[in-house]
Amino acid sequence: MNIISYPERSEWPELLTRPVQDSSAIEAKVLPILDLVKTKGDEGLRELAKKFDGIDLNEFAFSQEEFDTAEDQLDETLKAAIRQAYQNIHTFHKAQLQSVEKIETMPGVTCWRRSVGIEKVGIYIPGGTAPLFSTVLMLGIPAQLAGCKEVVLCTPSNHPAILFAAKLVGVTSAFRIGGAQAIAAMAYGTESVPKVYKIFGPGNQYVTTAKMLISKEGIAIDMPAGPSEVAVYADDTAVASFVAADLLSQAEHGADSQVLLVSTSEKFLAEVNDELTLQLEQLPRRDLAFQSITNSKAILVNSAYEAIDILNDYAAEHLILSVEDAELVAEKIFNAGSIFLGNYTPESCGDYASGTNHTLPTNGYARAFSGVSVDSFVKKITVQHITEIGIRNIGPTVEAMAEAESLDAHKRAVSIRLKSLL
Amino acid sequence: MNIISYPERSEWPELLTRPVQDSSAIEAKVLPILDLVKTKGDEGLRELAKKFDGIDLNEFAFSQEEFDTAEDQLDETLKAAIRQAYQNIHTFHKAQLQSVEKIETMPGVTCWRRSVGIEKVGIYIPGGTAPLFSTVLMLGIPAQLAGCKEVVLCTPSNHPAILFAAKLVGVTSAFRIGGAQAIAAMAYGTESVPKVYKIFGPGNQYVTTAKMLISKEGIAIDMPAGPSEVAVYADDTAVASFVAADLLSQAEHGADSQVLLVSTSEKFLAEVNDELTLQLEQLPRRDLAFQSITNSKAILVNSAYEAIDILNDYAAEHLILSVEDAELVAEKIFNAGSIFLGNYTPESCGDYASGTNHTLPTNGYARAFSGVSVDSFVKKITVQHITEIGIRNIGPTVEAMAEAESLDAHKRAVSIRLKSLL
Repeated sequence: MNIISYPERSEWPELLTRPVQDSSAIEAKVLPILDLVKTKGDEGLRELAKKFDGIDLNEFAFSQEEFDTAEDQLDETLKAAIRQAYQNIHTFHKAQLQSVEKIETMPGVTCWRRSVGIEKVGIYIPGGTAPLFSTVLMLGIPAQLAGCKEVVLCTPSNHPAILFAAKLVGVTSAFRIGGAQAIAAMAYGTESVPKVYKIFGPGNQYVTTAKMLISKEGIAIDMPAGPSEVAVYADDTAVASFVAADLLSQAEHGADSQVLLVSTSEKFLAEVNDELTLQLEQLPRRDLAFQSITNSKAILVNSAYEAIDILNDYAAEHLILSVEDAELVAEKIFNAGSIFLGNYTPESCGDYASGTNHTLPTNGYARAFSGVSVDSFVKKITVQHITEIGIRNIGPTVEAMAEAESLDAHKRAVSIRLKSLL
Repeated sequence: MNIISYPERSEWPELLTRPVQDSSAIEAKVLPILDLVKTKGDEGLRELAKKFDGIDLNEFAFSQEEFDTAEDQLDETLKAAIRQAYQNIHTFHKAQLQSVEKIETMPGVTCWRRSVGIEKVGIYIPGGTAPLFSTVLMLGIPAQLAGCKEVVLCTPSNHPAILFAAKLVGVTSAFRIGGAQAIAAMAYGTESVPKVYKIFGPGNQYVTTAKMLISKEGIAIDMPAGPSEVAVYADDTAVASFVAADLLSQAEHGADSQVLLVSTSEKFLAEVNDELTLQLEQLPRRDLAFQSITNSKAILVNSAYEAIDILNDYAAEHLILSVEDAELVAEKIFNAGSIFLGNYTPESCGDYASGTNHTLPTNGYARAFSGVSVDSFVKKITVQHITEIGIRNIGPTVEAMAEAESLDAHKRAVSIRLKSLL
């Protein structure tokens, strides 16, 4: 790591800048893909499978048999782990369901909110080396709790753990489609793939660009995407080997992973650097992790106040607080996706099984966005009922305001009711 | 209204289609505006004010004096009405604040969510004939309740009611800037205007296009926009004159306002048409409303079941249920922005003062989006704490899953802690 000692506040913005990706070249490649799927449906999907993957894709949907046999292909330890993760994630997200509370704002004027699951949602799970069955749980469980009627899964992976997790969360249909064309299929619908109203899930730059483009057309998406990142704030109560392991667990995601370490202790930063060298050696993905760690920064600051300010400026996706009184420090953090407290709370627990969601805002988006939760899968519809007494109470207020906004028909909709009650 | 009797289900999609606006021509005009403000800041804003409005804009900010004297320029009735609306909206939105609930998902594994106000938010209020001070309340009150530290207002209007409402909700700075350049100023920041993380508020096509474009850059926005709309479902318990007044209150927003009436009663539809003719005569904005009503549809359906299906397919911004057992019918609606029950609950009460928010999803976006609420102004940061006992409980699960996803460093971050506890 590059150790930066006591930088001036004026230097922070540059230190904390994320790499900017120019998406225009990728947009130019993704737009024709979206268009082809929009206009030609399944046939477009087949053409793209032939072109990009060199395969004849006759059957898009995973069969019931594939679902049924997936479980048999997994060893018992992994199945038990997935079931335990399911249980914890379910427990945490279930508490996010909100009951209806009717509020009488004036006598006779009652308003409330109903949480209703988005009828049709889509989940994308990328292929590649890591079969992200954990993401199936993270997106499928809140969809299930929200009561979404259709949950569509698209993935180019046929890993049995993905199908097993999909069955646990009650995915209603699943398709072997990957890349930007999968996003297009769910956004526009094809003969085989149902059109959905909101699309979730990670992916490469083609996938995330496709999501941004369809979101411009009014299809909802979970959130804008960027490379994964962790910030760790550590003091002398932290354990250098634990912190190094946490930094590496982020770094192995890819060379573009963002890793930031902040500390008031020069000695601790040096210890972590030594530990990184030791632990890197043992990693199968050490090349990826090495690149990411080499680009990463360790910032030595003067005080806890400075540390908190710098962390709020950075707005990390994952923030590990390996410091004394970590919970008190966490109260002062207002920009972060998810916070991990103390020495025995590694990010990887939240990535898989503690219960919190691992779909989180990257790239500083934590300033305005939350991670995925049950909220992401429901709409809150407001409902109101006004009685005859209520309209007498509220009517004059509405008349005065509508008149001042020059919206006469708005006023009349009240006046005609008030007159009928005279 | 055009009365369409007993259409087949296959005809519904076409009947319910909203007008599609091609935004590419507007995008081409808005992009250089965004770019000018991004690169030249205040100077860019001055150039644009000169070019589009023919004015020399020296002082962007509204002065404290302008705020202080706004109140004196309003009559007591209007001030009392605004204060009453403030009170009701505050009461309803305050109930949306969520307290922290800690969930122990396994012994020693505790997770929770903290709601934290987005630090800096922007509100845009358009100029034009109607000074939308009600929208200042609708956006400013949840921002205030959420605890947003900076609330920036941009508006080309200098109507005293807007400044009065801005003071009530605790806007922290306000600028006399309108159009796409106001969105750019808040998105990028200028010497005068603070950069914000999320932008709210209505506007013309230039403003809404600017919002879509900056949202592609990762600045959050409230929701995609479209023309305002109401759907009314009425049976023989409804009052034709009330329903006609409600349809007109929507129609006066503009010629592109969307108005839909659904009923099982042919007689009732005819009565509403007669009432529309009568009431239109009395409206100051009758030309606008006439165009909108002329384009609007009244659909005669066979049954309540059909009515509910068609309303769910349409996904109206505002849905008035003037039917028997309206609350029971509302339970069957899963796509709508806001629902109004019974004969004495006109939409205009929700537009101004009943307590619910009037910033709602249009254009069918209610299928996936909620209206604005306190939720729109907070991020929910997840926090977790795992004890030594907790990591022993959850560790093996995380190790098994990380291994199966080939993320070795994720596994090691747990293993190194487990080993330290042996």
